Amino acid sequence: MMGNKLVVIGGDAAGMSAASKVRRVQPEREIVVFEKSEYTSYSACGIPYFISGMVPDMEELIARTPKQFRDNYDIDVRTQCEVVAVNTVDKKIKVLNKGNDTTFWQNYDDLLIATGGKAICPDIEGKNAKNVFGISTLKSGEKTERYIEDKNPKKAVIVGAGYIGLEMAEALIIRGLEVTIIDRSEQVMGTLDPDMAEKIAEAIIELGITLHLKEDLKEFEISSNQVVAVKSDKRTISTDMVILGMGTLPNTVFLENSGIELGTKNAIKVNNKMQTNVANVWAAGDCTATFDIVSQNYKHIALGTIANKTGLVAGSNLANEPITFPGVVGTAVTKICDYEVARTGLTEKELKKLNIEYVTGTIKSKTRAGYYPDAEDITVKLLAEKKTGRLLGGQIIGKEGAAKRIDVLATALTTKLTLQNIIDLDLSYAPPFSPVWDPVQTAARYLIKKI
Amino acid sequence: MMGNKLVVIGGDAAGMSAASKVRRVQPEREIVVFEKSEYTSYSACGIPYFISGMVPDMEELIARTPKQFRDNYDIDVRTQCEVVAVNTVDKKIKVLNKGNDTTFWQNYDDLLIATGGKAICPDIEGKNAKNVFGISTLKSGEKTERYIEDKNPKKAVIVGAGYIGLEMAEALIIRGLEVTIIDRSEQVMGTLDPDMAEKIAEAIIELGITLHLKEDLKEFEISSNQVVAVKSDKRTISTDMVILGMGTLPNTVFLENSGIELGTKNAIKVNNKMQTNVANVWAAGDCTATFDIVSQNYKHIALGTIANKTGLVAGSNLANEPITFPGVVGTAVTKICDYEVARTGLTEKELKKLNIEYVTGTIKSKTRAGYYPDAEDITVKLLAEKKTGRLLGGQIIGKEGAAKRIDVLATALTTKLTLQNIIDLDLSYAPPFSPVWDPVQTAARYLIKKI
Repeated sequence: MMGNKLVVIGGDAAGMSAASKVRRVQPEREIVVFEKSEYTSYSACGIPYFISGMVPDMEELIARTPKQFRDNYDIDVRTQCEVVAVNTVDKKIKVLNKGNDTTFWQNYDDLLIATGGKAICPDIEGKNAKNVFGISTLKSGEKTERYIEDKNPKKAVIVGAGYIGLEMAEALIIRGLEVTIIDRSEQVMGTLDPDMAEKIAEAIIELGITLHLKEDLKEFEISSNQVVAVKSDKRTISTDMVILGMGTLPNTVFLENSGIELGTKNAIKVNNKMQTNVANVWAAGDCTATFDIVSQNYKHIALGTIANKTGLVAGSNLANEPITFPGVVGTAVTKICDYEVARTGLTEKELKKLNIEYVTGTIKSKTRAGYYPDAEDITVKLLAEKKTGRLLGGQIIGKEGAAKRIDVLATALTTKLTLQNIIDLDLSYAPPFSPVWDPVQTAARYLIKKI
Repeated sequence: MMGNKLVVIGGDAAGMSAASKVRRVQPEREIVVFEKSEYTSYSACGIPYFISGMVPDMEELIARTPKQFRDNYDIDVRTQCEVVAVNTVDKKIKVLNKGNDTTFWQNYDDLLIATGGKAICPDIEGKNAKNVFGISTLKSGEKTERYIEDKNPKKAVIVGAGYIGLEMAEALIIRGLEVTIIDRSEQVMGTLDPDMAEKIAEAIIELGITLHLKEDLKEFEISSNQVVAVKSDKRTISTDMVILGMGTLPNTVFLENSGIELGTKNAIKVNNKMQTNVANVWAAGDCTATFDIVSQNYKHIALGTIANKTGLVAGSNLANEPITFPGVVGTAVTKICDYEVARTGLTEKELKKLNIEYVTGTIKSKTRAGYYPDAEDITVKLLAEKKTGRLLGGQIIGKEGAAKRIDVLATALTTKLTLQNIIDLDLSYAPPFSPVWDPVQTAARYLIKKI
């Protein structure tokens, strides 16, 4: 395979992880990357912290620039080049050069699709208005920041109370805006169980954010190509800007008629080597469906960790170093105000859908020994299979030092541990770090009584 | 077995965990606990923080008092009662009531030995001097504090640079003393590899502590029953007090001729149910030998986590709820100045002794995304089996947020994960918590190249 032309579509985490891996193994191989924006390898997760001002310079979010890839890695990165079609029969792709508005066809021997995701927006008038911002790419972050700087907006409406919606809400509050969040579901953070999400909702309201749940976005009120109000099924909220926090969908529209099979939410179906159904076509990152080890189902999860891992797996295989990706367990973490929030595994809603009989238990503990200064509250909820006691999920909310404990539960899910196994784990203890029973073990000790 | 008399020797973590568990399951059973001090269920690990003043009141270190156990749990706790002999043939123990200096025999149906450990001191003149303090019991902590309050010492010598020695050194520096540590080995913290221990030594010296390594305690210079100087093989250090930080040994001298089998360092041999070789005699906590899952050997490890767990296991079995203890992987954590230090698994020294061919890799990373404020340095060292890539150990040094990551490695050791498995773990990521590859995964990615 050495010497064959590798073409990568998308120059962010997955695409550049793969390209870099191939370059390390195959120094002579031709590698071309088409990226529709001007940026490569950036941290989209960092955008809210750039908007809030915690990260003063957007450049800091960029791990490596196109020039660095060209100069130091000999990877031919072509920015402002959007791939608009794939012909898998003739092994070529159609590229729109946005710099000069021309298109051309590019052949490949191996193709890696790593086009990421796009912020969801319902198909309503005004969705492309100048003051509506999705936060899925660095460019969108840059636009948002420029708008705030230039127009000095006073009010923002955020549609969607998931991770990005809440992180952006906090960022905008810090910037002095009046923030309203609407979400059509009954709770914030749909990936948490409602009882845990409730605590986050309280924290958000305490921060001065107006929260309207069970309200669906119906319409944008437009004036001079700007949204001036957001209408839900219950009210009209005047605003100077709109943030879309309704999640992302994979960027796969351009694959229509390519023969490349799509799965859940039109994410690209890949095997555990990151191969699609078409020979010599690979995919990785937010544009693909990810195997969930706990439910044994495929999901669409847009996360930098998965993009980096699957990019590396694709790159290894493309470079003839065979490797497989076992999948994920659904781990995620965020920080809202002083609250750290983390989750892994399945929620009650998912377990019900899967007809798995489960038990749950929630405990309160401390992040340090109770007598140690700054011991903070931590709440841990565990979900386990009723019959076997096997861990099925975990959720943590707490202050400084709480959330990273989710990693023990994520590892436990991966290795199929039971509650008893978790109780037996030799976790670290000293007064500055934990009570003598780590809170995740205290939760396991509590829940095991229901098995 | 219900209704039989359970006698417990030792009223701290292991003994009271067991007694409480039995009480919960068997509300009617007679339970008697003999404790030689005045205290039950306290956090010996908290003593340095009490000495430093971070924990203002010693009472805060006590989870439950003898009175609480008597009143709320119907457990007959008898303090100031030291057990001096065990007759396993007649199933009785000899108790010294230190309150009135009388002895009596007490029969048992089941006996649990949970006598903990005792600070090691070489057998030299002055070892019982008034200003020599071991920090293995709450009473010793109380004595130390009272001495500092009453005598206002200016200088302290700490013998031993392990966890307790270093924690006490920091505490005494905070109290304004001039502190010198001597240790006969070539490094501080013998449970770390020398390259990692070196970083801690630097931090200690930076704190203003005088550190003399490769110096053996030879003699105490005594005046009026007080140590006035500590003599090593290299120098004489004048001092107002001495702290023993040379580790602990199991309190098992009273078991001589009892027929109860002892193992490594005279720790009591127990099976995975915490049964000794003698029928109806059980043991748990710091007085027992603990099975190490990684090396498959027994070790003596005095730690609150293990005492609590083995106490619970003993209690469950005593209460006819059969359960086994799988052992430990050697996890420990501490905080010295701003440095968090954690370790799990085997060190290079141990691996050499076991003739296991291994590879090691050390990486530097950050505790948060590099661009996020207060991203701190973290150094992770991993040890893995050369042939299989299986994790064998891990050591972490870093600032705020570094150390608790050891728990992922501890879980990985327990479940026998390889470096590739660690790379694949779905660990949590968001900019306030971690780089996109958690530092333990970055270390695994680095080390796997040597497999």
